[in-house]
Amino acid sequence: MQGLKKAMGTSNDTLILTASGSGAMEASVSNFFSMKDKVVVCSAGKFGERWAEMVQAFGLDPIVLTEPYGSVVSPERLAETLGANPDVKGVFIQASETSTGAAHDVEAMAKIIRETPAIFIVDAITGLGTMPLKIDEWGIDICIGGSQKSFMIPPGLAFISVSPKAWAMNSNSCMPRYYFDLKREKKMADKGESSWTPNTSHLIALNVALQYINDLGMDKLIENAQLLAKATRHAAAALDLELFSPNHPGSSVTAIKTPAGMDSGLIVKGFRTHFGAIIANGQGSMQGKIFRMAHLGYFDFADMFAVIAGLELLLQQNGHAVELGKGVAAVQKVYAEVAMRQPVTT
Amino acid sequence: MQGLKKAMGTSNDTLILTASGSGAMEASVSNFFSMKDKVVVCSAGKFGERWAEMVQAFGLDPIVLTEPYGSVVSPERLAETLGANPDVKGVFIQASETSTGAAHDVEAMAKIIRETPAIFIVDAITGLGTMPLKIDEWGIDICIGGSQKSFMIPPGLAFISVSPKAWAMNSNSCMPRYYFDLKREKKMADKGESSWTPNTSHLIALNVALQYINDLGMDKLIENAQLLAKATRHAAAALDLELFSPNHPGSSVTAIKTPAGMDSGLIVKGFRTHFGAIIANGQGSMQGKIFRMAHLGYFDFADMFAVIAGLELLLQQNGHAVELGKGVAAVQKVYAEVAMRQPVTT
Repeated sequence: MQGLKKAMGTSNDTLILTASGSGAMEASVSNFFSMKDKVVVCSAGKFGERWAEMVQAFGLDPIVLTEPYGSVVSPERLAETLGANPDVKGVFIQASETSTGAAHDVEAMAKIIRETPAIFIVDAITGLGTMPLKIDEWGIDICIGGSQKSFMIPPGLAFISVSPKAWAMNSNSCMPRYYFDLKREKKMADKGESSWTPNTSHLIALNVALQYINDLGMDKLIENAQLLAKATRHAAAALDLELFSPNHPGSSVTAIKTPAGMDSGLIVKGFRTHFGAIIANGQGSMQGKIFRMAHLGYFDFADMFAVIAGLELLLQQNGHAVELGKGVAAVQKVYAEVAMRQPVTT
Repeated sequence: MQGLKKAMGTSNDTLILTASGSGAMEASVSNFFSMKDKVVVCSAGKFGERWAEMVQAFGLDPIVLTEPYGSVVSPERLAETLGANPDVKGVFIQASETSTGAAHDVEAMAKIIRETPAIFIVDAITGLGTMPLKIDEWGIDICIGGSQKSFMIPPGLAFISVSPKAWAMNSNSCMPRYYFDLKREKKMADKGESSWTPNTSHLIALNVALQYINDLGMDKLIENAQLLAKATRHAAAALDLELFSPNHPGSSVTAIKTPAGMDSGLIVKGFRTHFGAIIANGQGSMQGKIFRMAHLGYFDFADMFAVIAGLELLLQQNGHAVELGKGVAAVQKVYAEVAMRQPVTT
């Protein structure tokens, strides 16, 4: 737990739940609000829609700020909404919206929210380890992570940090909760225990992953993801492919549009068949139109060269004119610029 | 999922949740009831108390039938309560109460409940694989299991079977729920998916464990636990130790009282120190007074001989007069009677 706190870079209470990340999302709804509380949900993808569904399931009264998939909700629009609704008690966003590859401007949003009575709830499941998230400095009241993304172990654990401002709201929150009761969990955590039987094997794995992250430095892990994301974008451009979120690209996953008329399922299936590799199709209405390549956690340039080389072959196989090696060269250039300025000497 | 259904021996829908067993317990409260619904909780240990706490957290109106730790709630008492309260909508029990080692008479209770409109919710986390639980034949509407007991893999997955009678109540249940929404989970499971990112590594492990269980036969796994429990009780008697639940012993775990004046923590710590083995102390008010030895899942007579031999040494070390080998001999006799009637031939 100390390792997790260090990796997340916060002095707030940081709890571990035996659940998928969505379980910690639910905890952030059921522990700090009461029915009919007015909240703002920023929704620009599948996970934003999950926030909206979830707060409605718990009887909150959400103002849903929707933007098209691939875009994000601007800090200006949020400021305007909060200005017109001083009774808003919480704002829910995704740091990085995994379904589209876009990232919110968390810092700017935090700056607006911290001047209001509302708490700021950030689903950072793919945000942690791929973008700076200064929980204490910016004022992220609730920051949510999951074991299977930058923390590099299988899914099954969720993380949640809770600020003093959020704990103060917890005292007034009236909502049925038990398994995800964070006050109870905190009480147990303070004794080195957990409310329920914890996922022991995952905790052992997490401990090893956190040692790796903290030895490396969370900032280096983020820098690595950002560089790989940049390389992926350059490769896409070199291969005449369009990014799905060109204006707000995050660094956890890059979503790329297939050339007109090509089903992105062919790229996904091709990776599995020819390279034993898994990339993701679009979700919901984006299925068949985009493919998504992750580059977070234990992932490096050697992986990146291979993935882009594979992509070139699959595009060619499916009829897209490709000069083989051109995408790989774009990746190489990014790497050369950043990491190979000093030649090795004997 | 098919393997799980087979192991549980039911044609009811059987769902897998990424959570501790307590998560499935919560699901059984939040999916089938509404606030102020009258329910009966049978409580004779720490997990019975958990049911009571949980239904109260969700605003139900429980009649809590309490019996002392080590005892159980009788079918007669339940029948009387249901007779006097025809508006009861659900009955909650532990098949096997892990904190005391006692087991409820699930069959007799099911017979009473199935003649009423109430659904029967059985926490069978340590019951499955240690006692017969005929879900369909007896009428267990909700049967709850966990990955870490007879299913032999680490904690992190919970199982829940849902009868048609329970699904009918789900349609009328009004309660905030999302992560543990079973209707949604069932819809996803029917498509071979899950609502949230599943615990993939545990599912792979579960698949292997279920193959083992189904190859062996669930009835054989139960018989094994029952024999080991019997052997443990005989060993306790041979060593002049008193059982904590002599009248209603279950087969998942046997709780034994330490001799007067001996802290049971010494036995627990002794096992860890001298044998690298983990047994459990009492919980709550029983701490220091009893120790609990589990004998479920992947556990056999060779383990049993070793555990009882270790126990003898630890009792002796702590001043209890012990004839070394006497407890082991009791275990040997049980094994000889049951499994060694036919000598091997060359």
